[in-house]
Amino acid sequence: MDRVVRLGLLGCGTVGGGVATILAREADDITARTGAKLEIARVAVRDTTKDRGLGLPPEAFTSDPSEVVEANDVDVIVEVMGGRDRAGDLIRRALELGKPVVTANKELVAHEGPELYAAARAAGVDLAYEAAVAGAIPIIKPMKESLAGDHIDRVVGILNGTTNYILTRMSEEGAAYEDVLSDAQALGYAEADPTADVGGGDAAAKCAILASLAFDTSVYADDVFTAGIDSVTEVDIRVADRLGYVIKLLGIASVVDGRVAVRVHPAFLPKTHPLASVRGSFNAIFVQARAAGELMFYGPGAGAEPTGSAVVGDVIDVARNLMQTARGAAESQHRPMPIRPIEDLSTQYYVLLDVEDEAGVLAQVATVFGDHDVSIAQVWQEGHGDSAQLVLITHRAREGDLRATVDSLGATPCVRSVASVLRVEAEVFDS
Amino acid sequence: MDRVVRLGLLGCGTVGGGVATILAREADDITARTGAKLEIARVAVRDTTKDRGLGLPPEAFTSDPSEVVEANDVDVIVEVMGGRDRAGDLIRRALELGKPVVTANKELVAHEGPELYAAARAAGVDLAYEAAVAGAIPIIKPMKESLAGDHIDRVVGILNGTTNYILTRMSEEGAAYEDVLSDAQALGYAEADPTADVGGGDAAAKCAILASLAFDTSVYADDVFTAGIDSVTEVDIRVADRLGYVIKLLGIASVVDGRVAVRVHPAFLPKTHPLASVRGSFNAIFVQARAAGELMFYGPGAGAEPTGSAVVGDVIDVARNLMQTARGAAESQHRPMPIRPIEDLSTQYYVLLDVEDEAGVLAQVATVFGDHDVSIAQVWQEGHGDSAQLVLITHRAREGDLRATVDSLGATPCVRSVASVLRVEAEVFDS
Repeated sequence: MDRVVRLGLLGCGTVGGGVATILAREADDITARTGAKLEIARVAVRDTTKDRGLGLPPEAFTSDPSEVVEANDVDVIVEVMGGRDRAGDLIRRALELGKPVVTANKELVAHEGPELYAAARAAGVDLAYEAAVAGAIPIIKPMKESLAGDHIDRVVGILNGTTNYILTRMSEEGAAYEDVLSDAQALGYAEADPTADVGGGDAAAKCAILASLAFDTSVYADDVFTAGIDSVTEVDIRVADRLGYVIKLLGIASVVDGRVAVRVHPAFLPKTHPLASVRGSFNAIFVQARAAGELMFYGPGAGAEPTGSAVVGDVIDVARNLMQTARGAAESQHRPMPIRPIEDLSTQYYVLLDVEDEAGVLAQVATVFGDHDVSIAQVWQEGHGDSAQLVLITHRAREGDLRATVDSLGATPCVRSVASVLRVEAEVFDS
Repeated sequence: MDRVVRLGLLGCGTVGGGVATILAREADDITARTGAKLEIARVAVRDTTKDRGLGLPPEAFTSDPSEVVEANDVDVIVEVMGGRDRAGDLIRRALELGKPVVTANKELVAHEGPELYAAARAAGVDLAYEAAVAGAIPIIKPMKESLAGDHIDRVVGILNGTTNYILTRMSEEGAAYEDVLSDAQALGYAEADPTADVGGGDAAAKCAILASLAFDTSVYADDVFTAGIDSVTEVDIRVADRLGYVIKLLGIASVVDGRVAVRVHPAFLPKTHPLASVRGSFNAIFVQARAAGELMFYGPGAGAEPTGSAVVGDVIDVARNLMQTARGAAESQHRPMPIRPIEDLSTQYYVLLDVEDEAGVLAQVATVFGDHDVSIAQVWQEGHGDSAQLVLITHRAREGDLRATVDSLGATPCVRSVASVLRVEAEVFDS
């Protein structure tokens, strides 16, 4: 007879519902593959009176998640309630009790991941979080296990579906940011308050998790330099296109001279790069490894069932280990490294200036760049008459120098305003 | 003190060399991540006198692979010697002895995979073969573990780097097949005898392995309908381009009406499909899963270090399990299914005909298609005068009917020859 592994769900919203749906629909295959029946034994929800169609007796539901964690008839904890403090306490308690935990909680893992990994390691219990990054895309497990024998040099990701949807439509339709955003909100692709998405915070959280894993070190969400897409204009998109680039919100993590360089911002990306063809709300993570070379993982970054698929995959893993009193791969944090300040970044830049339409403007502007050791690779005038604009692409320069250049440009009489500044990521990212 | 897991290498050619390089170079990280030192204890090679720079004493080398398998000081067998019979016997013996096996042997797994999985299951020992499909790309583990809770509907892969390199150059440079092939041979991208690559056999082997895994059933290399790229011409590529397609050698596996449909052939693929932008010698596997949606895994499909990276990842996995006397995920073969004959395929087709330049040709040709229940979606004349060609794109039709059509066309007086027939895979593949 098959064994039974009993699950305790903390939360039963979008992702929890997806998990329950998949567990029911694929039950036979899951049992065959796991060698155990996975059974939802208890569920913590805010409203215990609501019928969730899980076919569970009323006493399986509680409004107190602690009850689920402590229950003797729960073997594995599935945390899909979200939030930080309460969820963190519950997970730590579950690990203490020797109960493996599967979580989809990106925010928690991005802010307290290294501490949670340490708690899991101390308890000798599995903690899995595939669903916390890029929804359905298998990326945590491939990085942690498939590439365990390799050395990851760089991770570059399109980690937020909402912003990629907006940028794709801007690029393919020549539409304005505000118009596409309202459209995305109407279609449910963007929240009423889109700050976490368009401001880059959501992508930064995922980028921190990936950086920790890639470099065997501790990187937190707050370590990630973050800029959003709200200032990207149609002109920026058009200029990028003309030069052979697309604009994408990228999360980029690498190690440079023993420091972790980790940043999220919109950037020019060559159209030939595999990430450039990632359209709409899809996510993708590009991994550069010393032996494996250039890998990319692509798929839906969100949604009840995609995220649920990742959660259930993790549950099967930890259940298999639990039955064998074994542990899966753990995170290595053996290489403490400082975070490199963004000022030390070295990359190319695109600068768009509103300028007076008069003789000598280019000379004045070029002097400002030269004064700050930023060398210009390409320059041309866009528009004419009242709305003259100057487009500049720099050679590789230090971010600190570029910022000083921009400050000086702001104080240069012939420059009405600095309209846009974006980083240009060539095939070989920063060094 | 760290534990030591002792490896026995069967073979030390290209892949074996890559494995040894990686184990030495990443030794510290591998130890930290595994909780064990991975040590090459014994190596079976044809020529034991050659110095392989592994820093091993001469007595570690033997020309008899059985010695390595039987040795008491070998914990894990790494089979990178290739070939079928001998390698299969050695792997079966290792499993019998309770020694986990990591193999990169695509040919063996494609022909005897299900029997080997059963042997591993019976012995309760791990058998890992990530490196047998698509080199560095993590695909076996994601399909077997990350998607264990999901239902895979379809796998579509670019599974051979040589043919993708040739097709990419033909497409981007308008070059002829023969010219690019000689070039590829000169550059070492293609073998002197390129049959296994350009004939589709190599891709078919990988496709069989993926189909078994995707559908929990037994699929062998010989079950795969296979056609190569040697008949693809510049005209085909140009027509595809004009219609919004690229030509790729695809491995396609799905389950239709309880039968496994599995095939490798060149096909028209829409330029908007994620696989269409896979250029050069890269591989990629597109997986459509019920809950996860559309996933894609991209990377180098061959090479000493890319393949070595996959082998070492597997070694770390089985070593971790071995130390815990646990087993990793096993293959499920619980769903026996027949193979669907290619005649039952339903898809669109592109047909290129050399025809007489005379009135009434189209009517005659259209009649032949109509007689066989194949309906024409688009038709036009290419070229003129002596070299008149007719291009036809059909609606979805049964392969058996299309073949009968082509036979009849060959016997139609106004048709000089059937120059090309290629399948057209729209966004939604066959049904």
